Amino acid sequence: MTKDPFKITVHMVSSLDGIIAKRDNSVSWFDTTDNYEKGVAGENPEEFLKTIDCYVMGSLTYQHALELSKSYGWAYGDVPTIVVSHKNFKPERMNIEVFSGDLIKLVNEKLKPTYKNVWLVGGAMLAKQFIRLKLADEIRVTIIPIILGEGLSFLEGIGHEQPLHLLDVTAYKNGLVELRYEIKK
Amino acid sequence: MTKDPFKITVHMVSSLDGIIAKRDNSVSWFDTTDNYEKGVAGENPEEFLKTIDCYVMGSLTYQHALELSKSYGWAYGDVPTIVVSHKNFKPERMNIEVFSGDLIKLVNEKLKPTYKNVWLVGGAMLAKQFIRLKLADEIRVTIIPIILGEGLSFLEGIGHEQPLHLLDVTAYKNGLVELRYEIKK
Repeated sequence: MTKDPFKITVHMVSSLDGIIAKRDNSVSWFDTTDNYEKGVAGENPEEFLKTIDCYVMGSLTYQHALELSKSYGWAYGDVPTIVVSHKNFKPERMNIEVFSGDLIKLVNEKLKPTYKNVWLVGGAMLAKQFIRLKLADEIRVTIIPIILGEGLSFLEGIGHEQPLHLLDVTAYKNGLVELRYEIKK
Repeated sequence: MTKDPFKITVHMVSSLDGIIAKRDNSVSWFDTTDNYEKGVAGENPEEFLKTIDCYVMGSLTYQHALELSKSYGWAYGDVPTIVVSHKNFKPERMNIEVFSGDLIKLVNEKLKPTYKNVWLVGGAMLAKQFIRLKLADEIRVTIIPIILGEGLSFLEGIGHEQPLHLLDVTAYKNGLVELRYEIKK
């Protein structure tokens, strides 16, 4: 059996206009009331989460996830999570580690030797750095059926042309569409 | 048999980061070399064009289409085409008409009485006005497998929240994905 290859996936949930966060950080727009007959039912989130063995996020995304955890619980379970931050601080949970410094070192010295299926879950700035530096292998965008009109844009200003290879398209019963692309290297 | 209902579709071809035109207006990025095994073959463009009975475009899109027509021919055939422009000018082709003025009047007095399947093919500013004014019924976005990084964004700055209903998703063999949404009214 061959070893599963190491892979970093940038995952973003965005509106059709590419917004991943509203200015007030409210998240009710994630709960679409749409109904797409031809769609597939959502995958079992518990089963799916098991395949991810490390999360990476920026410090603002971490702060936001902490804030949300007060109402909904911590979204990333016990999976090891690395927060990329210029400032060092003591994380609120055992499975969270703070990383300051060079992203190439993060990937080669910390992630590659230990993990296989790493997900970068935000924010936009960190995602763009990973794409620019060709450190990410895949982009997975989940498009919610809404135009938000303003807010934080996922890919705006990335200032870098990057050809992609379409890997998969999944449309769900709730109107969400997931596009999965390989980042060509 | 019931009469086909009147419908205005906003159609845009964009990169994954929502760019519809590069700064230099070059269009080679439309020619993807991607290969998506699970995709369907492209529809017959001639057959498809027959279902559209009127095109609407802004004056910059018209200028750009004229420029491209020198190399590739006029993309919109003999289908009646309305160019929305503040300035009146004599169009280069018989089937092109210039419209200056109120967009609601354009729809109610010119389009609705005469046409059924109207396509708004650009630019971004006109598309956004149609969406804001709820004059468009559908949005059809064709996503090319590339991140462009900079250029003219389709929906940026629309400044208006608009729920959508997913109507259809089609992935093509060449890696293009077409998302079709109803604009909820």
